[in-house]
Amino acid sequence: MVTTAPTGAVTPAFTSVAEANAESFARLDDADPWVVDVQPAREVLPGYRDNLVLTSGAPMSWHDYTGGQREALIGGALFEGLADNREEAIARFATGEIEVGACHDYSAVGSLAGIYTASMPVFVVENRTHGNRGFCNFYEGKEPRRLNYGCYDEGVRDRLLHVNRVLAPVVGEAIRRRGGIALKPLIARALRMGDEVHSRNAAASILFNREILPAVLDMVDERVDGVRETMLHLAENDYFFLRLSMAAAKASADAMVVPGSTLVSAMAFSCRGFAIKLAGTGDTWFEGPPPIHEGKLFAGHTENEITWMGGESPITETIGLGGFAQACALSLQEYQGGSPEVMIERNREMYAITYGESTTYRIPLFGFRGTPTAIDARKVLETGVLPVMDVGLAGRDGGQIGAGVIRAPRECFLDALAEHARIFGRR
Amino acid sequence: MVTTAPTGAVTPAFTSVAEANAESFARLDDADPWVVDVQPAREVLPGYRDNLVLTSGAPMSWHDYTGGQREALIGGALFEGLADNREEAIARFATGEIEVGACHDYSAVGSLAGIYTASMPVFVVENRTHGNRGFCNFYEGKEPRRLNYGCYDEGVRDRLLHVNRVLAPVVGEAIRRRGGIALKPLIARALRMGDEVHSRNAAASILFNREILPAVLDMVDERVDGVRETMLHLAENDYFFLRLSMAAAKASADAMVVPGSTLVSAMAFSCRGFAIKLAGTGDTWFEGPPPIHEGKLFAGHTENEITWMGGESPITETIGLGGFAQACALSLQEYQGGSPEVMIERNREMYAITYGESTTYRIPLFGFRGTPTAIDARKVLETGVLPVMDVGLAGRDGGQIGAGVIRAPRECFLDALAEHARIFGRR
Repeated sequence: MVTTAPTGAVTPAFTSVAEANAESFARLDDADPWVVDVQPAREVLPGYRDNLVLTSGAPMSWHDYTGGQREALIGGALFEGLADNREEAIARFATGEIEVGACHDYSAVGSLAGIYTASMPVFVVENRTHGNRGFCNFYEGKEPRRLNYGCYDEGVRDRLLHVNRVLAPVVGEAIRRRGGIALKPLIARALRMGDEVHSRNAAASILFNREILPAVLDMVDERVDGVRETMLHLAENDYFFLRLSMAAAKASADAMVVPGSTLVSAMAFSCRGFAIKLAGTGDTWFEGPPPIHEGKLFAGHTENEITWMGGESPITETIGLGGFAQACALSLQEYQGGSPEVMIERNREMYAITYGESTTYRIPLFGFRGTPTAIDARKVLETGVLPVMDVGLAGRDGGQIGAGVIRAPRECFLDALAEHARIFGRR
Repeated sequence: MVTTAPTGAVTPAFTSVAEANAESFARLDDADPWVVDVQPAREVLPGYRDNLVLTSGAPMSWHDYTGGQREALIGGALFEGLADNREEAIARFATGEIEVGACHDYSAVGSLAGIYTASMPVFVVENRTHGNRGFCNFYEGKEPRRLNYGCYDEGVRDRLLHVNRVLAPVVGEAIRRRGGIALKPLIARALRMGDEVHSRNAAASILFNREILPAVLDMVDERVDGVRETMLHLAENDYFFLRLSMAAAKASADAMVVPGSTLVSAMAFSCRGFAIKLAGTGDTWFEGPPPIHEGKLFAGHTENEITWMGGESPITETIGLGGFAQACALSLQEYQGGSPEVMIERNREMYAITYGESTTYRIPLFGFRGTPTAIDARKVLETGVLPVMDVGLAGRDGGQIGAGVIRAPRECFLDALAEHARIFGRR
C-alpha cells in the first residue's frame, strides 16, 4: 500500500457505498474527454521539474526499479541530457539529483515502462464535464526497440527526437486549429470498426487522422514544415491512437473519485508488481504480485523471456475499454492469441465484476450492449473473476516480443477492501 | 431468359462440371482488382455511345421499365442533355433515338437504378490477374434524393455535376499518381474493421482515403483545384467506397467464365425482377420474380412504399462479400435490422450454397475462416437456401427509405440449371 499526493479531484461527502458507487459510476459515464493541445511535459504536467523522470506503476524509490524498467529510466535520463552516460545517470538517480516519479501522480499514464522526461510532448486531454485533465506522451513507432520497452540507443533517440521536433508540433497545431477533438464519440465509433483501443487502434488512428484533416490541408497549403512527413507517419502507425485513448481514459477515470466508492479508478504495474486504486480511498495504491499472463509471442521468442517493466495502459480497461471491449476487436486473435470464442467469453465475464454498462461505448456483437464498466472490487472478490487486460509483452533483453491478455492479481482487491473497511467500516 | 452480347472472357474447353467449377472458383479467388483510373463512361466503357443510358438488371426494352427505374432513365437523359424535357425524353426513348442498355453488357455495374450516361465519370478497375476490366460510377452522396433512387431535380443535378467537375477529376488524378490502388488487400482489411463493403463501407472509405493521401498532399502543395473540397467530401461519405467494391467485384466475377460451370457469376435486378448469370452458360440471364425482402425502414416510412427500381450491388455477394460477410459488420443491425445472432446465422448459412471459401476475404468472428464464395446454383436447389444480400431500399416516390436483407428467388436457379442441362447434358 503506497499513498501519494492527491490529484485534486472533487470530494462530496460519504453516505453509503451504494450511493458512492452510483455517483462514481455516473461521473465516469458522463466524462467527456477532448484532446485540446500537445505541449512538452514540463509545460503542462502539474508540478513537473526538469530533473524529473516519470515511470509506470505505484511510486517506488530508485533502488526498487530493476531490469527493463530501470534501463528505461536510465535511457530517459540520457535522452533528456540529465547525465552524460549510464554510470553518471545511475549515480544521479541514487543521490536524487535526478528524481523518479510515478506517472499517475502527475495526471499522466505511461505505456509499458512509461518514461516521461521534461521535453517530451504530451497530449493534453481535458474532461469537459468535470474540468480535470489527463496526459499521455507519444507512441514511438513500430520499431520493436523503444524506450518504453527498456531500450535506449541511437535509433531510439532519433525516433524520440523526431517526435519532439516534427510529429508533435504538427499534430499539436492541427489539434489547436480544430479547437480540440472530442475523443468519446471517436472511440465509440472505433468500437464499431474492430478496435478496443488498447491493443488494437487501427480504426481510431485513421478516424483521428480524418478529424485533423481539414487543419492539415490548410497547413500544407500554408507550407507549414513537416506536415506531409507527419501525415504519412500517422497513416502508417495503427498504434498511434493508443496514447490518446490512454489520456482520455485517465481524464475520465480521475473524475470517479467519490469517498467510500469501491470502484477501481486505476490499474497499473511496475517491475515489482500490479497495483490498483479505488475511487473511494484517495490516493492509495494497493499492490500485489505481477499480473497473471496468457500471451502470444512473436516468432523466435520464448515464454521465459517475458519480463514486467511496467504498464499503465490498463487505464483503458479501468473505463470499460481494451479487454472489456475485446468482443469488438476479434481480429486481435492473430496478434495476441485466443480464439474468437475465448475472447467473447472473456469479455462477457467482465459484466460479473463491473458496476454498470457504458451508455456510450457499445459492443455490436452483444446487440450494442454497453461495455462492462467500472470494476467493483467487491464483485472481484465475490466472484473470483479477475479483470482482463490486452497488453504488449516486453522481453528480458528489451523490446516487444509479443502480446496477450493479463489478469490483475486478487491480492490488490483484498488489500483495497481491507483499507476501505478500515476507513469506512463494514457497510 | 435473356441473352446478350458476350463480354469477351476466356473460354477453355468444357470437361466436367466439377472441373469447370474448380476452375471458375480458382479464377475468382485469384482475381486481383486494382483501381487504375477515373474517366467518363464514354471514354472507357466498351462500345459506349453518347445517346446511351445504362440501367440495372437483365436487358429490357424501354417499354418494360416502370416506376422509379423509368423515372431514373428519364432523369439520366435530362442530365446528359439528350432531351430538353421529360416528354421529349420519353418520346426519344420510345423511338430509340435515346438508347437504353444494361450495365453488365458494358462491364459495368449500377447501384439501385444504376444510371450511366456518357459524361459520368467511372472508376476503371483492372483485374491484374486476368486482364479484364470492371467499371462503376460515383456515389451521389448522402442526400436520400438521388438519381439512382429514381429522383431527378435541381439538387440531384447539382450533385451529379459536382461529381463530374470536382470530385472525379481530383480522385482520378490521385489514383493515377499512386499508380493505381490494389483493392483486394484494402477490402480484406476493411472486413476486419466492421465493413462487409456492400451496406457498410465506413472503414474501406477511410482506408481508400489513406491510400490516396500521399498524392493528395502533393496536389494541395501544387495548388490543384478542388482538392481540399474533395478530401472533405470523401471524409464525410462513408458509402463512397461501395462503387469501388462493386467495380472490384465485377472485374473479379467476370473472370469466372468457364463453360459448364454452375457457379453464379452475376446477380442483379430491375423493376421487373431478379436475374442471375452462371459462369458456365455464357451471357444468358435467368430471370425470376423480384427479390424476397426483409428490411428496416427509416422513420416515417411504411412497408408498402418499398419498390424495386433495380440494383446490381449484389455483385459484391457474388464474390463472397456483402451479405456473405455480414458477420464482419454486425453494426449493420442498426441500419438494416436483425439481431447479431440472426446476422451471424445468415452468414453461416451461405457456406451451404457456395463452392468454396475465399483465401483473402476472411471473417474474424469465424476464426478468420474465408467468406463463403461462389454460389453454386445446384447447391441452392439442393438445400433450398437462397442467397442473402444487404441492400438499400427505395421508396415508391423515389429516394432511399430504408435498408435490409433480400434473398434471390429460387426460380432463377431452376431456370439456369435447366438451360445448363440443355447445353451440357446431365453430368
